[in-house]
Parts: sequence; C-alpha cells; structure tokens
Amino acid sequence: MALDRASLLAIDACTLRDRLATGAIRAIDLVEACLAQVAERDPEVRAFAWIDPEHARAQARALDEHRLRGRPTGPLHGVPVALKDIIDTVGIPTENGCALDAGRKPMHDAFVTERLKAAGAVIFGKTVTTELAFMTPGPTTNPHDPAYTPGGSSQGSAAAVAAAMVPLAIGTQTGGSVIRPASFCGVTGYKPTFGAIPRRGILAQSPSLDTVGVFARSPAEAAMLGEVLFGYDVGDPATRLAPHPDLHRIATSEPPLAPVFAIVQPPGWNEADQDLRDAFDELAAELGDQAFVAPLPKLFDDAAAVRERINFAEMARCYYTYGRDGGDVLGPHVRDAIETGNGILARDYLSALDMPKVLNAALDEIFDRCDAILCPAAPGPAPKGLDSTGSAIFNGLWTLCGTPAVTVPALTASNGLPMGLQLVAARGNDARLLRNAHWLHTRLDQP
Amino acid sequence: MALDRASLLAIDACTLRDRLATGAIRAIDLVEACLAQVAERDPEVRAFAWIDPEHARAQARALDEHRLRGRPTGPLHGVPVALKDIIDTVGIPTENGCALDAGRKPMHDAFVTERLKAAGAVIFGKTVTTELAFMTPGPTTNPHDPAYTPGGSSQGSAAAVAAAMVPLAIGTQTGGSVIRPASFCGVTGYKPTFGAIPRRGILAQSPSLDTVGVFARSPAEAAMLGEVLFGYDVGDPATRLAPHPDLHRIATSEPPLAPVFAIVQPPGWNEADQDLRDAFDELAAELGDQAFVAPLPKLFDDAAAVRERINFAEMARCYYTYGRDGGDVLGPHVRDAIETGNGILARDYLSALDMPKVLNAALDEIFDRCDAILCPAAPGPAPKGLDSTGSAIFNGLWTLCGTPAVTVPALTASNGLPMGLQLVAARGNDARLLRNAHWLHTRLDQP
Repeated sequence: MALDRASLLAIDACTLRDRLATGAIRAIDLVEACLAQVAERDPEVRAFAWIDPEHARAQARALDEHRLRGRPTGPLHGVPVALKDIIDTVGIPTENGCALDAGRKPMHDAFVTERLKAAGAVIFGKTVTTELAFMTPGPTTNPHDPAYTPGGSSQGSAAAVAAAMVPLAIGTQTGGSVIRPASFCGVTGYKPTFGAIPRRGILAQSPSLDTVGVFARSPAEAAMLGEVLFGYDVGDPATRLAPHPDLHRIATSEPPLAPVFAIVQPPGWNEADQDLRDAFDELAAELGDQAFVAPLPKLFDDAAAVRERINFAEMARCYYTYGRDGGDVLGPHVRDAIETGNGILARDYLSALDMPKVLNAALDEIFDRCDAILCPAAPGPAPKGLDSTGSAIFNGLWTLCGTPAVTVPALTASNGLPMGLQLVAARGNDARLLRNAHWLHTRLDQP
Repeated sequence: MALDRASLLAIDACTLRDRLATGAIRAIDLVEACLAQVAERDPEVRAFAWIDPEHARAQARALDEHRLRGRPTGPLHGVPVALKDIIDTVGIPTENGCALDAGRKPMHDAFVTERLKAAGAVIFGKTVTTELAFMTPGPTTNPHDPAYTPGGSSQGSAAAVAAAMVPLAIGTQTGGSVIRPASFCGVTGYKPTFGAIPRRGILAQSPSLDTVGVFARSPAEAAMLGEVLFGYDVGDPATRLAPHPDLHRIATSEPPLAPVFAIVQPPGWNEADQDLRDAFDELAAELGDQAFVAPLPKLFDDAAAVRERINFAEMARCYYTYGRDGGDVLGPHVRDAIETGNGILARDYLSALDMPKVLNAALDEIFDRCDAILCPAAPGPAPKGLDSTGSAIFNGLWTLCGTPAVTVPALTASNGLPMGLQLVAARGNDARLLRNAHWLHTRLDQP
C-alpha cells in the first residue's frame, strides 16, 4: 500500500534511498508525490525552469523495472534530484537563466548529471537560476512567504527542496549562491571544498571560484548526495585524484568528543540583523564550553574586494560573448560586472589569486583550536521583495578560501522566517564538517 | 690507472654513470678532470656564477667512500651536474643573475636539487643566467668563439656542457632559454612537457610558461638526466601524479619503424638565416620519404604575441618587488617588460591562457601523421656580440604549447658555428620524442 503524499514527502532522503533500494517504496510513487507537490506549490514558488512530468515518470518506471529484474542499483536509485539550470542535461533545455540561451539544449551531460544518472537518480527537473548565475533574480519566491526572496543564485534549487517538491537538488556558488539561499529557505546548503566536485558541463562564471554545491533538508542528506558527486575529471583542472570520501557514513557517525566551535564574526557583522546577533548570543550561551569567539585578523577585511576582483575579471573573460551579443537583453548587473571586469589589470588579478593561500594560513590557526568555525550564513532572514537576492557578505570569504561550508537550518527570526547557521572547516575536511553540522542540527532541532 | 683528462671528458654521461657505479671510474678523478677543464676554459667562457673546487671534491670523495663501503648508489652516482643560478641550493649562493640578489643563500633546496642529491650527483657549480632569466646577458661567451653569444637565458649551463667542463647541466625555459642556447653552443637541450619537472625552489618568472630543462651532449644523455628529475610536487600546481617514465631506456631503443618527421616552417621562417634554410633543404632531401612539409594554420601567427602577453603579465606580478626596489640596478629589459606587463588587462591575459588548448588541437592534426615535428631551434648560428642572446622566435611557440622539445646538435653554418635542429612532440610523448631525437642524432652524427 502506497503512503499518502505528505507522509512520503516527509521521509528524509537517506531513508527514501534505503527504501527505494529494497523496493519498499517505488520510484514512481515517489515521483508522483513530488509531481503532485509541484502542481500544488510551484505556481506560487516558481522554482522550476523546466519540468516535464512524463519525463520524470518514464525514468521512475524504468528504474522500478530495472530493480524488479534484480539488476544492481546505484546509490541514489529512484531518488529525484533537481538541477540548477546552468548544469548541462542532454536533450533537456539548459538556459542559464539568460534570454540569450533560450531554447539551448546541450549535446553533453555535465559531469554531475552523468554521476546522477549512473547512481540511478531521477533527473526531476531544472531549477531557476538568477541570470547567468549572477545577481538578476528569476521568478522564484520564498516558500515560507512569497513576498520574500529565496536568495540566489541557486534560488530554484533551494526553494524546491524547502517546498518539499524534491528531496535533493544541486546548485553552484561563486559568491554565496548555495549557502545564502539555503539560509533564506530554511534548508541545508553544502558547498564542498573547492575542486571536490568537477564542473565540466556547467556554465563557467569564474573558474577560480565556481563551486558545485547541494541542497537537502539536513546535513546527513546533503552528505549522501555530495558523496555521489565527488570525483576527478580531466575536464576540470581544479579537481585532483583523491580517495573517494566516506561522507555520509562519517557525517552520521557520533563525534568522538563533543565538538568545539570557533564563533567568527566576519567583516559585515556590525550590519547584521539584530535578530541574528541575538540568536548568536543565545547560541554561544547554549554551547557553553563548546564555543569560543575567534577574531579574524585584519587582512580578512579585504577578502570581499579580492573575491570580487577575481570574480569580475574572470567573468569578463567567461561572459565575453554574452557581453558582446547581449546589449539590453542582459540585466544591468551582468553588464556592469563585465564592464568592471574589463578594466581589471592582470597584475591585480594575479595578486588577488595569491590571497587564498594567505587567508587559509590564517584560518589554519583557528582550525587548530576548534572542530569548525560557526558563523552566520546571511545577515538575517530573507529580505522582503523579489528585486534582490540579498547580501552574500558572509559567504564570499569562504568561497574565496575554498573552504567547505554548510548551512544548518536552525534559527528563526522574529518574523517567523528561517535563518541559517554556517559551519566552515579547513579545506579537505568535508566529512568531519558534515559530522559537526549533523551533530549541531540534531541538537538544535530536537531540544 | 686513471684516464687522462681528455679521454675522461670525452666519455658520454651514460657510460660515465655506468663506470662510476661499478667503480671503474672514481668520482674524484672525474671531478678533478672537470675542474681542470674549468681552470683552462672558464676564464674565457665564463659559464660559472659560482664554483668551489673544494666543495665539488668533498662530494666526490664522500661518494667514492660511500660506494667503497658497498652502500647502494643512486642513478647519477658521482656524475657532476651544473645548475642554472636561479635554482635554489642550500648554503650555496643563488643570485638569479640579479644584483638585487647578490649574496643570497637559500634556506631550502629546489626540488631538482633534492633529486640530484638523492641520485648521488655531484652539485658541481652554479651557472650564469641572464638577469632574472630574462634578456640582459651575463658574461658567458660561446665556447666555439668568444666573440659570439652562447644564447640565453640558460647561457652558463649550455656553455659549460659545450666546453666539456661538466657532462650535464640544468636550465629553464620561459621563451627559448633551453633550446636556443643549446643550438648556439652545439649541444642537446631538452625541454620536457610543461609540468613534467617540478619547479619548487626555482625563481618564478611566468608560472604558466616556466619549464625546467636539461643540457647534455646528446639526446640519450639528456634522457638519463631528465628521467631523474621528472616527478610530482605539491609545491608546483603544474605537476601531476603520473607513472615515472622510462625515458632513457626508451630513448636509446630502436624505433619499431623508421620515424617520419613533419618539417614545420614556423612564423619567422622567412627571416631565418640562408645557411639554415639551405640546411633544411638538404635535410629534407636526405630524409626522403621520412619527411614531409606540414604548414601551420594561420592562428599560429599570433602565438608569439600571446606567449609574450602571458609572460609579461605574470612577470609584472612575480617580479613586483624587483621592479619596486630595483630602480636603475635592473637592466632595461626587465624594467620594460614589467612596465608592459603592468598595463595588460586581466581579460586579455585570461584569453591568452586559452590559446594553448586551441593550438595543441591544431598540432594534434600534425602529430597524427608523424613521429615528431622537425623545425629549426634558432634562426641561424649564434649572432656575433654579447649584448644580445639572439632571437627566440622559433622557441616561444612550443613553450606556450607546453609540448616537449629537444635540440639536436647536427648542423654547421658556413662560419663553422653549430646550428641545432629542433624536434617537437605532443605533450606527454617525451620518451618517444627522445627516441626520435636519438635516432636522428645518431644518423646525422655518423653519416
């Protein structure tokens, strides 16, 4: 007997995966539940740039049949996953949130699309991105209140998971495009160590910064999806051959000692929402000996400007043809950034590229004394209105440093909207970061 | 009974290595022969920036003792090797050919220095480099005639080998600094695939181009030295984990089929010396069916400018402190290049970095039909005078592409000075390139 929609959609993705593997849940039933939820919620949320119910059903039926024949199943057999619309999918429109790419159908799958298909996931739909994954918002609204932004640029992916239209989704972050929308939408966003997930087949905005990330309702689920996507690809020079990480098993294991968090108030803290600052005071009190405040050295004050310099310089190169052909079709944000990027000198760009090494050396001093840095994911809850995706002030630093970061959905603002915490670890320490995020999420979720 | 100096110095480095390993030749006798040659030749050639006879003797004596005790010996046990003076050597001056670095003694060995020591080589001395491995010449003269340049920037390494003061030497190439001085001095220069030899501990001028190379009297000897230096190092992001290549064994093996060469007349061919063009005509006739002329597509005409843009932009960054502190102490070439580099836009620099991929795709069309590209190593013999190191017009293209290249010393100009051939292969095909170079060298050397 199939579960009703609400019960099915309430199950976490890890349990869904296990039950789909045994056949206790059929892929088609899960897909139907998701599709029904889309039919109900998406007219308001508008998370999907492309979705075809028959396409999702056909995959689910084929996967159910595959399992019934006793064939081996992949680690995400039958699990629906949504992809940000800058991730190439063969034969499915991938329009990069840009009118210039209307109707574009890629010839090849992105690396992550290949991985999802090999893992048996259902490619459920493509989610709304801001224009070219930059700042001009798409139509997506915040599932908690349609008058508020869901954040950006991976707005559709964050909102789709938050509205329970799909259990898992993929996004990307060049500034704050995973961690911030997850925070505004009240879900988990996980941005792995730079280079952990190959970017072949994904719109390149700034190759020194672009990072693939994932969305789920909890850190444990994010770990399950992230694990499938980690890898090496000759098409992405940022990736390295490395042993495959045991992300999900480690993330859901008990920390050997109670974790200790370094509370960091990054540049911009003084302009943060009073709600957020109050919540951090409470949190510090709640954590007691398990938390201490770690000041950032002065050189971190330049990090935002340095990140922007790299972003705009590389964007001017990567989006050259958009800038050349776009004219007024492009939003002003992209045009202005390209123009700024066009004026950046190679020498200044190259010196900016040296900064992450220096910043990470300073961060290592903090990481030596804690299990993770604990800081806000955004300056407060989602701002009202759909004209802006909000501030990425608390995200760009970690993108620049390439450190893994995760949004833990744990706080609530006085207006009822969610606010996320952000945990950050040293590069390469993804599994332990997720374990600490799981620990904190479990503790704050079930007081 | 020890051999006399001339007999000892006439032995090729591979045979020396084998006899040193068995004890048939003592390291101290070889070092004494080299030192006597230095005493006789170097007052005119001026190849060495630093040499201390006692330092070389002490190493040789220790290595002889080590072998006599029956301890295992490395692959270059007792073989003297000279290093370009931009390669760090602990406790030994490494002055980068620059007055600003006078008296500089590094705290750490470069990767290649570590490798040489581990292989049992004698660190014989440091060789003259042009200022900061760029264009302002040092005092070195051409061993064939002191009125002529030895080329640059690895001028001391090329001249030291050509004058038989040392059997092997190491240099670097950012434009044409290995292939060209080898050609002018009548020795073999070998520039491996970009990234094959780690650059940690070597002055960085342009990290997208800087390549470590070696000098020897023949391709077989260059292969022996190169093989010891290939490796992976986390300190050099251009390096990759890869199986260690069997360079020397393959280089000295018989090709399964008679090799076929694609004769390429690169941009600048029309301004090449008539001697050189005549020699190429003769060579093509001599090779008969084993050679064909392959035209380069038009886009190669921009390669020199593209390479220079990358070089100068990165130089402006890498040599920032030299430029800031140097004033008139720096030669005009470096100052001008920094100034030009300071004006290059990040967008133009980044688009230049995309060129090697395009050029290599075009080259692959040629490599599909031949065993190696055959082209000149320089526009003619060494030019007269010591004010310039000559033109690198035929070298920069291959540095930009990262393709392995080797100078085969085989031609003689009408004035009696040597002219080198250059063989080039696809990236990663170093062993086969050296085999073809060995084949050609053997054939042209012993008609």
